[in-house]
Amino acid sequence: MIAVDANGADRGPAAVAEGARQAGVPVTIFGPVSELGEAPDVVDAPETIGPDEPVTSVRSRPEASVVRAARAVADGSADAVVSAGSTAPALAAAVLNIKRLRGVHRPAIAALLPLPGGSTLLLDAGASAEARPEHLVQFAYMGAAFMEAVHGVERPRVGLLSNGEEAGKGTPAVVEANERLGNAAGGGLEFLGNVEGTDLAAGAADVVVADGFTGNVALKTLEGASQATAGAISDAIRSGPLSTLGGLLIRGRVGRLRRELDPETTGGAVLLGLRGVAVVAHGRFGPEGIANAVRLAARAVDERMVERTAAALEAAGALRSAPAGSFAEMPTVAGPGASE
Amino acid sequence: MIAVDANGADRGPAAVAEGARQAGVPVTIFGPVSELGEAPDVVDAPETIGPDEPVTSVRSRPEASVVRAARAVADGSADAVVSAGSTAPALAAAVLNIKRLRGVHRPAIAALLPLPGGSTLLLDAGASAEARPEHLVQFAYMGAAFMEAVHGVERPRVGLLSNGEEAGKGTPAVVEANERLGNAAGGGLEFLGNVEGTDLAAGAADVVVADGFTGNVALKTLEGASQATAGAISDAIRSGPLSTLGGLLIRGRVGRLRRELDPETTGGAVLLGLRGVAVVAHGRFGPEGIANAVRLAARAVDERMVERTAAALEAAGALRSAPAGSFAEMPTVAGPGASE
Repeated sequence: MIAVDANGADRGPAAVAEGARQAGVPVTIFGPVSELGEAPDVVDAPETIGPDEPVTSVRSRPEASVVRAARAVADGSADAVVSAGSTAPALAAAVLNIKRLRGVHRPAIAALLPLPGGSTLLLDAGASAEARPEHLVQFAYMGAAFMEAVHGVERPRVGLLSNGEEAGKGTPAVVEANERLGNAAGGGLEFLGNVEGTDLAAGAADVVVADGFTGNVALKTLEGASQATAGAISDAIRSGPLSTLGGLLIRGRVGRLRRELDPETTGGAVLLGLRGVAVVAHGRFGPEGIANAVRLAARAVDERMVERTAAALEAAGALRSAPAGSFAEMPTVAGPGASE
Repeated sequence: MIAVDANGADRGPAAVAEGARQAGVPVTIFGPVSELGEAPDVVDAPETIGPDEPVTSVRSRPEASVVRAARAVADGSADAVVSAGSTAPALAAAVLNIKRLRGVHRPAIAALLPLPGGSTLLLDAGASAEARPEHLVQFAYMGAAFMEAVHGVERPRVGLLSNGEEAGKGTPAVVEANERLGNAAGGGLEFLGNVEGTDLAAGAADVVVADGFTGNVALKTLEGASQATAGAISDAIRSGPLSTLGGLLIRGRVGRLRRELDPETTGGAVLLGLRGVAVVAHGRFGPEGIANAVRLAARAVDERMVERTAAALEAAGALRSAPAGSFAEMPTVAGPGASE
């Protein structure tokens, strides 16, 4: 069963519930009965945590829907949680309740890039603004494990996002992470070295690793540029000789491509590095996007993403020795959907 | 007269010379006479500095074409320099010979984003991998002065690239720069606060400020995503019913848009913060792109970009007190065209 937090989405709880029920897997919807109506799959949870509230609210307000949905994973009553609200509280609630995998420094927000025919995973897309080399190294293994488990990519190619392909290019953290990942090749990772912004849309890598600040900027820049370009072309076509059959057919093809570029198609972002599966949808998703988010969560559960991620990190020797789970290291920076 | 460094471009010195002569302004071309032929506007300078050579080569190899072209600006025989080669040596040669404006911490690579109908300047696009808050503050004023002087934008709107719109979002340097620029409002800057990746393509700001690492990733991501989207749509159209007149007309419109998305149209990147005008073209530019780069340089000279930048920084109180110009602070990180 997938626990779905229905509060905080732009189109309201009813649209989230509609999408959750379309997914084709068992769900429990945490939201206001006053809006959703009494139903066997609804748990009354009217309390919501807004994007501007401090992340510590997930501790002080245990009855908020996002906290209750995350707790359902922690106590074993749900297999995964999907949140349709803001990223920051969803991340905080997941870290507090589901907890990090032992030996994982930090969770990462991993987003599949909305690209024509593409399946590139970008992480971290905004869980933490800064990253040390050991964080980037863990992200590399976590991302590869996800693409292998959930997307069936054999030996995913992993690149480190930088401002040049040469190993010496980038911030000190990127340069050091490149060195460590390069040395660890043979540790089961198909490491491409540094990749550049142009490589993101070109699908040059299956997994692209970045700190959460750079990853968030890159993800939103890519989404914005794709949409703006597709929009400009649609406008040009619409202002053209659309009365012809050819024009109409072309408009259909372009429309199909625009759907591929829509983040709703990918189902949102997965939180990696936790002891359970958590997916964060964009706040602006409609029912279709929510259904895709629930399906993504179900696939991660079926394919044992968490166990395989833990095994990959351990096999690579990329786990830290100190125990994980302290609240102090909890990320405070919002992800892709935070302010939308 | 504009000094043009013809070495290092992908299509060779002759293509650079062809473009330079098309620009419609007086030029002097620094390149190999063996390839360019003897001509009144050609200075024989066969020596070139490759993208992988250390930036200190600009000091040890004074006869390299990029160094000679930059020196022509320094000694007053040229009004500006345009380089068609790698960004790193072009930047280093400009900093060493033309020198920074007094009180400027660091030069920045400023790129006009290739967008339909857009005129957004992004800086730093890769001169330095990291930036302190005072660097970001100077970039804001330098970028605004450029857009006002060269693009005729009245009171350019300036945004700080971050992973969220709220003032507290971002790296510590971004958070502090946001605070300083916010406090300085009234100092002549139309400061929008933080902007996100999606705002880049949406044209939400006239000037977007970032450190060189983030700016480089964002610029290349935007270029890659725009091109990939336009390419996918072109493919869809081409595989469609092109025999109709409607299809052909649409193909023409899409082709026009694709040209707008091509970096050649913007003419490359300008180096801001120097005592003279320097423009760096993409290594892959053909004659049209080079001609646009030379025109961009000529416009910056005509509109007194350097003087107006210095005046804007001084009026804002954004200059540092220690004298500028030391070689130690010279940037070592390559820009957009470095590895292309």
